[in-house]
Amino acid sequence: MQLFYSQQIENNVAVLNEEETRHCIKVLRKNKGDTIDFIDGKGNFYKGTIFDYNKKNCWLQIIEQQEEKKRNYKIHLAIAPTKNISRIEWMLEKCIEMGLNSIHFLDCFHSERKHIKLERLEKIALSATKQSLKASLPSIHNIVSFNDFINHFKNDNIEKLICWVDEEKHQLINQSFKNKEILLLIGPEGGFSEIEVKTALTKGFKA
Amino acid sequence: MQLFYSQQIENNVAVLNEEETRHCIKVLRKNKGDTIDFIDGKGNFYKGTIFDYNKKNCWLQIIEQQEEKKRNYKIHLAIAPTKNISRIEWMLEKCIEMGLNSIHFLDCFHSERKHIKLERLEKIALSATKQSLKASLPSIHNIVSFNDFINHFKNDNIEKLICWVDEEKHQLINQSFKNKEILLLIGPEGGFSEIEVKTALTKGFKA
Repeated sequence: MQLFYSQQIENNVAVLNEEETRHCIKVLRKNKGDTIDFIDGKGNFYKGTIFDYNKKNCWLQIIEQQEEKKRNYKIHLAIAPTKNISRIEWMLEKCIEMGLNSIHFLDCFHSERKHIKLERLEKIALSATKQSLKASLPSIHNIVSFNDFINHFKNDNIEKLICWVDEEKHQLINQSFKNKEILLLIGPEGGFSEIEVKTALTKGFKA
Repeated sequence: MQLFYSQQIENNVAVLNEEETRHCIKVLRKNKGDTIDFIDGKGNFYKGTIFDYNKKNCWLQIIEQQEEKKRNYKIHLAIAPTKNISRIEWMLEKCIEMGLNSIHFLDCFHSERKHIKLERLEKIALSATKQSLKASLPSIHNIVSFNDFINHFKNDNIEKLICWVDEEKHQLINQSFKNKEILLLIGPEGGFSEIEVKTALTKGFKA
């Protein structure tokens, strides 16, 4: 399914911007009377019929609206961007597939990258959101210093975790792996079948 | 550092195969008397001086040998390959960076991919091993049926895990996330500084 994106929705009419219009009319050769699917980036899917267009915009009469099924929890990520930005772009795509709510970038003491191209990341985010058939765009925030982030992140009613292991726990983890041999079984996209799971469990695999 | 690979080492002399020779002599323009670094794929690093070459082989006098620092545990992965093989190739690279000992491919009931190109994966594995400056190649095994794998995997003295969550645990996990809001903080390549960790901990972050 091809999803478009509109930021301008009012009175059952949606407007596509220049880029989305180009893709809709020029690339996919849609015409007046055709129905397309689009999202508002805020959690809503729409079906709309094209009733007018020009080079810069495309106007849609909304004929259906559906709210995205919301999860009952929210996840925010704050990360110091890697030197190699393609890793961050890849991570961003994965975060969107997983439905993260917001992504913040940090400038830390050991950071090798102090700047990001927010506009480029937002483009990648929009494209990944459409491709994974989601209706909500995560909010992406420009890089701030570690201290600013820590001191100004608003929400108090939130579980806050930092990825860091102290020396003592590090020792414990090392100890728990010592001389162990581990076999990890990962299924196909459709998951293991019931019989496969049962077989594995009877053969001593732990779930 | 550029690492080469030799499968033929005897009496302090190592031989490079045609591909490695081409890369060493043609591409990097090494000559007799030059010293290069290479691995045997079995956990050893070597330094060797080129004393002869032709179009197909290159002969090296070994002047140094060093064993790779071994971890005190072993990890094996058995995975049903994804339909999109590039994901498996990417995973293979990451597994090698993490130092996995062996990788097995499974044909499961829900599998969408029944074949892999073992030779191509072995090439990727060798390249990733050299790039991540490791001396051990993981063993990569061709695809077998889920049942064959489960019934014939030799080692009994091994922790066997299957990635699968039963309905009850699934409920528990869902419940534990319900209405939660989570913020996850990830540091740069060099890790968070001591002060940053302390700041985060005083601000209520959990490690």
